[in-house]
Amino acid sequence: MFESVRIVLVEPSHPGNIGGVARAMKNMGFSNLVLVKPKRFPDEEAVWRAASAVDVLERAVVVDRVEAAIADCHFVVGTSARERRIPWPILDSRRAAEQIAVQSQGGSVALLFGREDRGLTNEELKLCDLHVNVPTDDAYRSLNLAMAVQILCYELRMTALYDRLPERSDEEWDAPFATKEAMQRFYQHLEQTLIDIEFLDPAAPRQLMTRLQRLYNRMRIDEMELNILRGMLTETQKVVFERSALRAQLLTQKGQADE
Amino acid sequence: MFESVRIVLVEPSHPGNIGGVARAMKNMGFSNLVLVKPKRFPDEEAVWRAASAVDVLERAVVVDRVEAAIADCHFVVGTSARERRIPWPILDSRRAAEQIAVQSQGGSVALLFGREDRGLTNEELKLCDLHVNVPTDDAYRSLNLAMAVQILCYELRMTALYDRLPERSDEEWDAPFATKEAMQRFYQHLEQTLIDIEFLDPAAPRQLMTRLQRLYNRMRIDEMELNILRGMLTETQKVVFERSALRAQLLTQKGQADE
Repeated sequence: MFESVRIVLVEPSHPGNIGGVARAMKNMGFSNLVLVKPKRFPDEEAVWRAASAVDVLERAVVVDRVEAAIADCHFVVGTSARERRIPWPILDSRRAAEQIAVQSQGGSVALLFGREDRGLTNEELKLCDLHVNVPTDDAYRSLNLAMAVQILCYELRMTALYDRLPERSDEEWDAPFATKEAMQRFYQHLEQTLIDIEFLDPAAPRQLMTRLQRLYNRMRIDEMELNILRGMLTETQKVVFERSALRAQLLTQKGQADE
Repeated sequence: MFESVRIVLVEPSHPGNIGGVARAMKNMGFSNLVLVKPKRFPDEEAVWRAASAVDVLERAVVVDRVEAAIADCHFVVGTSARERRIPWPILDSRRAAEQIAVQSQGGSVALLFGREDRGLTNEELKLCDLHVNVPTDDAYRSLNLAMAVQILCYELRMTALYDRLPERSDEEWDAPFATKEAMQRFYQHLEQTLIDIEFLDPAAPRQLMTRLQRLYNRMRIDEMELNILRGMLTETQKVVFERSALRAQLLTQKGQADE
């Protein structure tokens, strides 16, 4: 998909936006940029805003008419504000990304973005197979040009990659997570320790252990952390044991003194 | 959610980015912006880039320390590049948005964005309950600050709204779509017409009607369009009928001439 999708900017006025678009594209893995009659290009401001995506600018194709930008494409998508569009098939950015991903398997797909102030003309919108709308807030609907490109490229990237992203990045964690069995042993150890320090009354346990299990499960503990917790419990039990020993010793001494 | 989420920029250097962030936020329905030690603020460039989101800039809160920006929050999320993060719970932008939406029901949530050049420090990342990463392309991982805010705010908005967005914007179409029954009558009309013009041989129909049905179904035709198509068929049939009549007439004349 990343190779077969091209971003087409129709008559962009601000070179800063062109640079911002180049960066947004490269961040998301896209590189095919076509400019239709840009007001100022090439331009230093575009280079500055592109940052490390200057290569996308350098390979950008400049053409005179929208038709030339889409001539070899078999699917064309136009961005459209809700309020001024002509009746035409229209999808939100997420659903449109799904269709674009499907269409890009069969050939080149063009995404048309209009002028900063007026968007695409009705004539240009009629060249499109599909219109796409980013569901912006009613209080401020007009997206900056580079932002609109960023959102669409991001959606396309997520459509392609999301299922392959790890639900959690376990592989980058610095210790393996504790197994359920290890957690069970920990809970038993914890319960015994709480009884030892007389915080938990086995005759009236209430919901104490349930609540603690829910808490620790939520934390998702790794093996190193579990070792620390187990060590704390063992040390606590040692104190309890020593206290018992001292009490017994005291009782013995007291008995001897009383004799 | 839109009221309880705040965007926190930690030591932003470029006022243009602050303005871009304000616009990105307002476009997506957010308005709570906190700036931690901004290098230049207020600034004309921020106002220019904010466009119609100057109100977000005007209400922005400026503080001296990150701790002050998040003091009353019960959930804090920090943006982190993959390569330099400390081991910490981390989710991609889409899964993080789901968690933020849930957490925002219980109180204020802060989203921390770091410096343009160095991101958040490890100390700042340790203040967070969760780290979030936008899955950028390996060839260019570093997102512009305002773009990162745009993507996260967009994801949050989609998390909140997506299920309520219409699958297709039928209500804005200028004519009702044709019913399945009307389409069936159209296909019968079409088939008869194709037989009439001898394009379709009923004895060897092959896959012609199947292919045509698949084609027209894909177009999703409205009632007005169907009337046009039906009118075209009727007119075609008239020509066929007239041709038959003319042929018959010719035969008769020929017969008379032959006599």
